[in-house]
Amino acid sequence: MSLPPDLLRTAHALADAAAAQSMAYFRTPLDIITKADESPVTLADRAAETAMRAVLADAMPGDGIYGEEHGSERLEAGRVWVLDPIDGTRSFITASPLWGTLIGVLEGARVVLGMIDMPVLGERWVGQTGLGAHRNGVAVRASGCMEIAQARIVTTSPDIFNAADWQAFDALSRRCAMRRFGGDCYGYAQLAGGTVDLVVETGLQPYDYLGPAGLIEAAGGVITDWEGRALGLKSDGRVVAAATPELHRQALAALAA
Amino acid sequence: MSLPPDLLRTAHALADAAAAQSMAYFRTPLDIITKADESPVTLADRAAETAMRAVLADAMPGDGIYGEEHGSERLEAGRVWVLDPIDGTRSFITASPLWGTLIGVLEGARVVLGMIDMPVLGERWVGQTGLGAHRNGVAVRASGCMEIAQARIVTTSPDIFNAADWQAFDALSRRCAMRRFGGDCYGYAQLAGGTVDLVVETGLQPYDYLGPAGLIEAAGGVITDWEGRALGLKSDGRVVAAATPELHRQALAALAA
Repeated sequence: MSLPPDLLRTAHALADAAAAQSMAYFRTPLDIITKADESPVTLADRAAETAMRAVLADAMPGDGIYGEEHGSERLEAGRVWVLDPIDGTRSFITASPLWGTLIGVLEGARVVLGMIDMPVLGERWVGQTGLGAHRNGVAVRASGCMEIAQARIVTTSPDIFNAADWQAFDALSRRCAMRRFGGDCYGYAQLAGGTVDLVVETGLQPYDYLGPAGLIEAAGGVITDWEGRALGLKSDGRVVAAATPELHRQALAALAA
Repeated sequence: MSLPPDLLRTAHALADAAAAQSMAYFRTPLDIITKADESPVTLADRAAETAMRAVLADAMPGDGIYGEEHGSERLEAGRVWVLDPIDGTRSFITASPLWGTLIGVLEGARVVLGMIDMPVLGERWVGQTGLGAHRNGVAVRASGCMEIAQARIVTTSPDIFNAADWQAFDALSRRCAMRRFGGDCYGYAQLAGGTVDLVVETGLQPYDYLGPAGLIEAAGGVITDWEGRALGLKSDGRVVAAATPELHRQALAALAA
């Protein structure tokens, strides 16, 4: 009888492979290509995802892959790896440390593992269903915040929202104890670590939110779309993550008001 | 004949003393006090500035001090140390790494040394008149960007602007190649390092901008208020920092339009 596949070990190997590529390019002049959606993408991004796919081809050859840079393979497989080699390419290009590698593992509709690796910070955040969430091996947990008025909210930029969604976000975030912009994926790590209580964003892709989703759920938080539906490969890219079910319920109601 | 006072050695000692205090509090639950201006301030902030003042009392007892937490002393002295033990207290409280210790040294109206120390990142940025700018001892220089359309612009948050200033910032930043929010003092370090080309902010205090000013000028950049006047202890808190004189001139004109 063989052992069950070691998802966590594979996730670490993927993050190691991505970091080896991305850190080799960090703080060096980049050949920046502008994609159709105008988000900058770098050679580092492509090289890191290629390295991650090589790891998966070796460790889990039958699994599906949903990646930012090199598209999808075997999405019909029982397990799908959702990969963003460099989330926060604008941070990367401007040599800010707040970019990360995101890894989400879907089994059917469920995210069973989520990782946010921050190579510059030397912080690896990982959550697994039933096994909790950890930052560099130390257990972390979302805060107990249950009131919007007590909540610290973060989002990447006002520029990610359309006019109507910005109005909704603005009204919600002005009721919070603190709101901050910037941070890309790190806001989700902060939420898992209990130092941020709400993250509300729009315009995200599955590779942007499924890694964070696995981490946050394992840390005791709640993450869905703006209608409260579970996140998957076909969500609309609007995300609400909250430290507690009660805070999440309040945030959804505020955004719908 | 005695040697001239070693400003750089003293600045390093100040940053070391501040970091020993601030890092002892980082990621621990904080007793947050709300000041009249509603920016959160922490025990760490006060402890770090107390430690910095003790260093100065020993090393440069006749110098003036302008500090965020414990007020001013001897501002009539020929040299004044302008201290912000923790710039970015919101980052600090939410366990983001983007807070720093800022040190500016004024001799008369001139900033002769500026330091941005980022303890979590392990990055110490320092500039001195005539000696250039360095990041952890490695020479850095502002970019050669001379066009708004090519510029990467950062600011801390839309929330730091009043309505009129936001309109001006928004119009300028939408003409840039990239705009990002968040980062507190780190934006000025990025500018000194050539990975950001413009930083435009308002509502700053002397301890927020004089350390960055010394760094940026030594890196070849230009930093003034929104009217193009040199920054000092009595500026109005509106700051424009640019990688080149030409970009600075264009930014001032755009903000005044």
